[in-house]
Amino acid sequence: MTERLAAAMAEAAQAVEASLRDLLPGSEGHTARLDDALLYACLGGGKRLRPLLVLAGADLFGVQRAQSLRVAAAIEMLHCYSLAHDDLPCMDDDDLRRGRPTLHKAFDEATAVLAGDALQAQAFAILADPGTHPDAAIRVELVAALAQAAGPRGMVGGQAIDLEAERLAVAGQRMDMAEIARLQAMKTGALIGFSAEAGAILGQASPAARAALRGYAADLGLAFQIADDILDHEGDAALVGKRLGKDAAAGKATFVGLLGLEGAKARARQLCEAAQGHLSPISGDTGILHALAEFVITRRS
Amino acid sequence: MTERLAAAMAEAAQAVEASLRDLLPGSEGHTARLDDALLYACLGGGKRLRPLLVLAGADLFGVQRAQSLRVAAAIEMLHCYSLAHDDLPCMDDDDLRRGRPTLHKAFDEATAVLAGDALQAQAFAILADPGTHPDAAIRVELVAALAQAAGPRGMVGGQAIDLEAERLAVAGQRMDMAEIARLQAMKTGALIGFSAEAGAILGQASPAARAALRGYAADLGLAFQIADDILDHEGDAALVGKRLGKDAAAGKATFVGLLGLEGAKARARQLCEAAQGHLSPISGDTGILHALAEFVITRRS
Repeated sequence: MTERLAAAMAEAAQAVEASLRDLLPGSEGHTARLDDALLYACLGGGKRLRPLLVLAGADLFGVQRAQSLRVAAAIEMLHCYSLAHDDLPCMDDDDLRRGRPTLHKAFDEATAVLAGDALQAQAFAILADPGTHPDAAIRVELVAALAQAAGPRGMVGGQAIDLEAERLAVAGQRMDMAEIARLQAMKTGALIGFSAEAGAILGQASPAARAALRGYAADLGLAFQIADDILDHEGDAALVGKRLGKDAAAGKATFVGLLGLEGAKARARQLCEAAQGHLSPISGDTGILHALAEFVITRRS
Repeated sequence: MTERLAAAMAEAAQAVEASLRDLLPGSEGHTARLDDALLYACLGGGKRLRPLLVLAGADLFGVQRAQSLRVAAAIEMLHCYSLAHDDLPCMDDDDLRRGRPTLHKAFDEATAVLAGDALQAQAFAILADPGTHPDAAIRVELVAALAQAAGPRGMVGGQAIDLEAERLAVAGQRMDMAEIARLQAMKTGALIGFSAEAGAILGQASPAARAALRGYAADLGLAFQIADDILDHEGDAALVGKRLGKDAAAGKATFVGLLGLEGAKARARQLCEAAQGHLSPISGDTGILHALAEFVITRRS
């Protein structure tokens, strides 16, 4: 990782954590257990990839940090809700996340369900609030884009297809490359895409700049997911902070399974370069976004 | 129930069901199981109290049905998501809802969690879409109000307090009247309040008219909940379509427990009349809303 990217990631993480603390309700009275769960779910570390994308994208168009940080926090809340629900016993049944007990282990299942529900609502509340941008048309565009990215044809639909992939695996069937790519484009790509585009919405960037960021994010998201599969195959569980190898063990199709380890690495490299290529029409300094694409496929956790 | 209210309820139910069908994704491909679950969760009958409130409120201010029906459908999706999550084994663990298997019984727990998540996102997607109103400021105001009503200091917070009430009951403690009233104001009151106010937002009604509808809804919501407790105490499970008496059996404080059966009935009657009283500043025909307040405390299911 370049020094500049490391500094930008650390700064984005610190800034978005302060913003998350500000934008979540304080722990009080009979809702204290839920309130504490919201903080636990959102403040447990993580790479803060999506907030970095929002901030780096917004910086290209001169957006004030006070605005882009609110959007970054809203997207991170949405992401953290999805992790809390995906980890539930009825879903992926994971006990460990970012090296700590998952939310339902640290609290209880009911609280984990409710905390996820509350985080989703709170994300929309933040985007809709005038503090995010004085222009209602921009706020509602952010809401519409996040709702699409999060909904039945976005993130949640992708998780549903992932469950379907498990049912198919039990029946001895595997999805093909196109199906897995669509699954990932919905499950993680939609929110990564919105993260990259949000700054352009806030900054009222040109359609060409928005399309460039969308293209960048689509390739970045898929590269990220292939790298995840590679880590799942040959990573160090202690570094990654979660259980590894479970997709392959469940008989589910993975990029490594479909392309082989070397093929998957080559595809990730190709996508990284394609992502960087999308940035060329943008006149601002896209150094962070370039470095991030490189990082996504070389990270060890 | 007056004939006029019966007709309005039947018409609202039919119209909102058509609107829900329109606004939910069709069942297709690998997301078919999720898509079917969304339809099952939303099209299982129910009184459609919230859609009726939206439509009756919107009619007062001359709002087009094409607009108010979208808002009514969005609110009903939000409500149906909350039922699906509240029924989960880790929450209230209910097998029966509206006389049918609950969502996780008809499908599975993972699908019930995801369907709820998708319905929440879809509700915001609908409100943010230009089809709901051409003015972005009005759309984003609807989003902000729904997000507040649904979030950690609204519906979800109320459900968290309800779980807290159960933990207290296990420890032999009971919440008092003020605590239970706050729980209900958050758990069901917030969304009922938004339902009543949404038409005024769409119709850009005067602040006085909005305040009148908010006041009406606050009393209506509490009356509804007290009537629910009374039904829970002396209702017919076959008519109500769900398991009865479980709050009292769990040792939780209920309005009937706190006020006695006659006291609870008197309080519900008082609230019904207070709700009707709030409507007096509104110049339009509030006959439906008057009759609805009466219905809420005299219904048998």
